[in-house]
Amino acid sequence: MKKFLLSEDEIPHHWYNVLPDLPAALPPYLHPATQHTLKPADLEALLPRHVIEQEFTTERWVEIPEEVRDTYKMWRPTPLYRAERLERALDTPARIYYKFEGTSPPGSHKANTAIPQVYYNAREGVRRVTTETGAGQWGSALSFAGSLFDVEVAVYMVRASFDQKPYRRNLMETWGASVAASPSELTKAGREVLAREPDSPGSLGLAISEAVEDALSREDTRFALGSAMNHVVLHQTVIGLEAKRQMEMSGDAPDVVVGCVGGGSNFSGLAFPFMAEGLANGGALPRILAAEPAACPTLSRGRYGYDHPDTAGLGPLLPMRSLGSGFIPAPIHAGGLRFHGDAPTLCLLHESGHVEARALQQNEVFREAVRFARSEGFVIAPESAHALRGAVQEALAARAANEDRTILFGLSGHGHFDLAAFDAFLAGRLEDYDLTDEQIRASLETMPRTAPVGE
Amino acid sequence: MKKFLLSEDEIPHHWYNVLPDLPAALPPYLHPATQHTLKPADLEALLPRHVIEQEFTTERWVEIPEEVRDTYKMWRPTPLYRAERLERALDTPARIYYKFEGTSPPGSHKANTAIPQVYYNAREGVRRVTTETGAGQWGSALSFAGSLFDVEVAVYMVRASFDQKPYRRNLMETWGASVAASPSELTKAGREVLAREPDSPGSLGLAISEAVEDALSREDTRFALGSAMNHVVLHQTVIGLEAKRQMEMSGDAPDVVVGCVGGGSNFSGLAFPFMAEGLANGGALPRILAAEPAACPTLSRGRYGYDHPDTAGLGPLLPMRSLGSGFIPAPIHAGGLRFHGDAPTLCLLHESGHVEARALQQNEVFREAVRFARSEGFVIAPESAHALRGAVQEALAARAANEDRTILFGLSGHGHFDLAAFDAFLAGRLEDYDLTDEQIRASLETMPRTAPVGE
Repeated sequence: MKKFLLSEDEIPHHWYNVLPDLPAALPPYLHPATQHTLKPADLEALLPRHVIEQEFTTERWVEIPEEVRDTYKMWRPTPLYRAERLERALDTPARIYYKFEGTSPPGSHKANTAIPQVYYNAREGVRRVTTETGAGQWGSALSFAGSLFDVEVAVYMVRASFDQKPYRRNLMETWGASVAASPSELTKAGREVLAREPDSPGSLGLAISEAVEDALSREDTRFALGSAMNHVVLHQTVIGLEAKRQMEMSGDAPDVVVGCVGGGSNFSGLAFPFMAEGLANGGALPRILAAEPAACPTLSRGRYGYDHPDTAGLGPLLPMRSLGSGFIPAPIHAGGLRFHGDAPTLCLLHESGHVEARALQQNEVFREAVRFARSEGFVIAPESAHALRGAVQEALAARAANEDRTILFGLSGHGHFDLAAFDAFLAGRLEDYDLTDEQIRASLETMPRTAPVGE
Repeated sequence: MKKFLLSEDEIPHHWYNVLPDLPAALPPYLHPATQHTLKPADLEALLPRHVIEQEFTTERWVEIPEEVRDTYKMWRPTPLYRAERLERALDTPARIYYKFEGTSPPGSHKANTAIPQVYYNAREGVRRVTTETGAGQWGSALSFAGSLFDVEVAVYMVRASFDQKPYRRNLMETWGASVAASPSELTKAGREVLAREPDSPGSLGLAISEAVEDALSREDTRFALGSAMNHVVLHQTVIGLEAKRQMEMSGDAPDVVVGCVGGGSNFSGLAFPFMAEGLANGGALPRILAAEPAACPTLSRGRYGYDHPDTAGLGPLLPMRSLGSGFIPAPIHAGGLRFHGDAPTLCLLHESGHVEARALQQNEVFREAVRFARSEGFVIAPESAHALRGAVQEALAARAANEDRTILFGLSGHGHFDLAAFDAFLAGRLEDYDLTDEQIRASLETMPRTAPVGE
């Protein structure tokens, strides 16, 4: 076990923006009502001005405000480990590294964007922020940030998680947030679903609709999104920028970078800084591998086109790979990966062949998480365990080929609130899920009919 | 928020042993059966040889084996923070620092002794280790250590916690340990209780009896204790030794050091290194404040004398302050503080007036933990929140007196597995507990009749 640590001075001073380095221009977002190109001003009722600017900027480097860097210091720089014990357990010639984001107070990488989003809102006089949350990682990160900057946080939590994961809800409430089960009676979108289906377990897309509607209905309130959009990916690049320095300290360079993909922000935040030079100069790139659940295989089996991030279609149409905003993934424990779409920048780099994708079943993922706990010591989130499993497959392939390989994967958060899932795995009670082509086709039918991306 | 970090080279190379610096010789332990002075050899069926040596050594500095230091590197050195946000929330002139042990994989300081204990067992060929656990912090730390050194771990978990805190049990099982609810059918001590009281919720003292009996009954098995004894306190001094260096970096010296006391190992591990020079040279000492629960006020209301660490009386008689091994504390959420005795070294320093004690109610403790979460960001364990509350009382006293004061407290672990307790607090469902003098008297009656300590 080797650990590579940076000093606080080495927390990046700028976030890295991949937009100017993409192999093609990012297609515009479309207005949800008119389907015309979305203008920055269209987002003003939803997001603070600085965040909108960051969503559209094509500057390569965006300065991190001093107050944000100061707050990052609560837990950053995060450690990068070489997983020597895991390597021995796998008997592989590969060298495996992981960047560990689980040391933040809310326990995952989500704090990296929660802090700047709340900071910009506070600076612009916004008093209240709404958001959606599935498993609760994003909601708790935003609640944490809200408590630090005295901004009220209202979370719409998918009903199924609200009932099954009371600890995450308690965590948000301990930080002072208010948490409503979605669908709720608080919004039109929620009430409509409840009228049709009083026992609806909710979905992430619906919770986004509720949070957006709430934000649009109040002058003092804005909305905060936990993944997918450019500004979120931008904030998450602190992960990869630190990891690059740490890999340099190790003397190794990654042949392959692996991350798990839900909306794509943790994955992109780690991977994009490792792609920057190659994209900008047309030079060599490491392989970039996205690990996603077989129950929600957006990159592997989705369609590239325009789709809303939410079910009610209140959010802008994003150019992305999607399974359709009407897709309801099976109840896998990696709740953070149950999203029908992905970050537009990531999707574009997948279209251009720079990013590979691989879909994984949850039993193989949990088997790997248990091996990791018993070798490296950390009990990790089921989401992160997808990245781990992808990395282990690479290490086993290196063993089979008897070749050298340096693998870096993103460990996005701890699994302290997921122990019931580990219990289910150890007791043999976890299900794997396969989607038929028919199910995928039906789900893709829920994508709106727009012009193809880029036309 | 300021953070003081050390490099891995600054992990101590030696543990600090307070024995040679005590103001009087530590009275001998007594054999549980004969009440004669306990000889090191009497412990050989229970503990590995190196641990026994450490229990009795009067060397001031004990070398930390390289393998243990290497394993410490998984999460050590731990950070020391200046709680500037909390200071502002309290509007106090005091400067508050805390040493944070919650970053270890099992989430508390317990890993500091679990690692060397399992290491010495492994080195001496022991294949299996038993232990007791209440809330589960110690059991999970030992399970973690067992998984790293390939030593089987069998945990006797107090039935009440086993039923109410499945996450901690799942955590131990994820690391590969076997966990039995105590009282169990696996031991004579357990069966006797079950025969009398089939629904017994168990107690820490009984779980120790079961774990000891199990260890004594098998040649390949030893016992590991999570607190109280000298070797455990010794291992925990890494906390205070690191904190001393970090306080030097800050340019401040603590006027008062505060810790929570269950069995006393986390408290002593932090405090003893700050007392070392003063004790050795008769110089000035900082004030040393022990925060304990009003529901289990061992130092505040116990009696100094000989008592067993366990209910069945299998463990040696220790010279300590005790409420009587038959004492069953009220079901407060700080499960790690529900122990009838305390570390003999700590008790001696309390007798000599070097350590103050203060008993706290759980509502005031949780109120403080919530204020801390909303200012410093971390959601901490109810045990640690006792230390926090003691520190805040000191800071408020400094404000009232309008005086400078530097306060250091020990933050022994995170509260990720205690969120149901936070929920109960926020909903106004937490009880405070007062013990009448009559209850204390009755409980002290369960102390065995031995010669007074030191005679």
